[in-house]
Amino acid sequence: MVLIDAAPHTERMAQSVLLTGAAGRVGTAILGGLSDDYEWRLLDRDPPTGDQPGEFVVADITDGEAVREAMEGIDVVIHLAGDPRPEAPWNSVLTNNIDGTQTVFEAAVDAGVEKVAFASSNHAVGNYETEERTPEMYRAHDDYLLDGTELPRPSNLYGVSKAAGETLGRYYHDEYDLSVVCVRIGNLTEGHPPIDYERGQAMWLSYRDCAHLFDRCIQADYDYEIVYGISDNDRKYYSLERARDVLDYDPQDNSAHYDGDERVLEPDA
Amino acid sequence: MVLIDAAPHTERMAQSVLLTGAAGRVGTAILGGLSDDYEWRLLDRDPPTGDQPGEFVVADITDGEAVREAMEGIDVVIHLAGDPRPEAPWNSVLTNNIDGTQTVFEAAVDAGVEKVAFASSNHAVGNYETEERTPEMYRAHDDYLLDGTELPRPSNLYGVSKAAGETLGRYYHDEYDLSVVCVRIGNLTEGHPPIDYERGQAMWLSYRDCAHLFDRCIQADYDYEIVYGISDNDRKYYSLERARDVLDYDPQDNSAHYDGDERVLEPDA
Repeated sequence: MVLIDAAPHTERMAQSVLLTGAAGRVGTAILGGLSDDYEWRLLDRDPPTGDQPGEFVVADITDGEAVREAMEGIDVVIHLAGDPRPEAPWNSVLTNNIDGTQTVFEAAVDAGVEKVAFASSNHAVGNYETEERTPEMYRAHDDYLLDGTELPRPSNLYGVSKAAGETLGRYYHDEYDLSVVCVRIGNLTEGHPPIDYERGQAMWLSYRDCAHLFDRCIQADYDYEIVYGISDNDRKYYSLERARDVLDYDPQDNSAHYDGDERVLEPDA
Repeated sequence: MVLIDAAPHTERMAQSVLLTGAAGRVGTAILGGLSDDYEWRLLDRDPPTGDQPGEFVVADITDGEAVREAMEGIDVVIHLAGDPRPEAPWNSVLTNNIDGTQTVFEAAVDAGVEKVAFASSNHAVGNYETEERTPEMYRAHDDYLLDGTELPRPSNLYGVSKAAGETLGRYYHDEYDLSVVCVRIGNLTEGHPPIDYERGQAMWLSYRDCAHLFDRCIQADYDYEIVYGISDNDRKYYSLERARDVLDYDPQDNSAHYDGDERVLEPDA
């Protein structure tokens, strides 16, 4: 027998990716950029409102049985599900964010998943923004920089829950050799960066940079990482070094290239 | 009017200290050394078996109402209550250790408590003890040292819960100006250090050093601290620098001064 068609062997099989919290804002940005690139299984407690790629599982992240079933045949998990409100009360983040994330890591290990990208948050380190440092740290000339090696310093109980999720990831990596990347997501907005909000401009994440960053979380090889998920903003006080070095993240956007809601085609130096 | 008896003003009033998990091993060591020094309110889910100083509250740490009541008139809280088993299942540490600790911090802030000393654990950083580093790191000649600025790296879900408690402490300090010290307790044994167990000898904490350390947590002034709770062991891989500098901790014991279960009066150099 002569093999005359090698295409099925040379063409890379699309990876199966489970996206929890798919209907949220981060999920929307990811699917906006990557819907055709992977075999998607989307999970959300709310049913889809429009056309979605792949399969859709309607389930709450605290439903262990449903989460375990959703892991079957999955290569990579992007775990976004949880209560996204910075002002969420303790009981909600304890259940949805801390317990929910443990459920995801445990199920991922049991199912033989290779990688989990966990949506952490800038709120896990929000209290580094002390009165003494702000607003100067939000400005381009200031060189204060967090790089992901600092201890958590949450600005709310939501941030506490995200830091706990990062620590769970560390444990599941160390114990079970699961690749885990925690992405401390900044201020994600569609279109232009936040207006008249220096902090938001400093940690802006554009939709296309968001999709690209999670694409790199699916593709890259890593052990355990904490990275910052922001665009390449002049105003940034989060280092992009680990995201660039480990994930090959190459952001295209910068909040400084906008004036109000207008894109400035020739950015100022 | 002439003040002729200044004694009530110069003699320091004993501080009121709430000790949660009072019936456990750490509580026993603390009360063994400090029972006469403070106005104690002891809280445990198990009623006392012997004579105890002060008041005793029988309550579970997850009983928010009981914890809030127990905070009344308290200056300092030593929070030990929780599931102490390194192999404890997730649901237990989620409820007893993570949720229980949030209940304690929240109630402490509401009651106007000044300081909380939180019993964290060596298990919060147990996975720094990698195959490559052990057993060398347990030996006196090895200079590997954790100092409390490193990110958590738990060796079990119990350790994850202790790291989450530390992060809660950071939050309650930053937001409410509560003084918080997290003590990563090593291997506490009464009498002599563990025999034929290098790791235990490296992180040994004697009963008298334990009582003295928590005495310093009651007395010293601090903002937010993570310290290691061990004796001054030759084998140590945990730094005592922050405990010495911030708390004025001055440990008297060293596991190297024992040979088997015998105290060596003239320690080897």
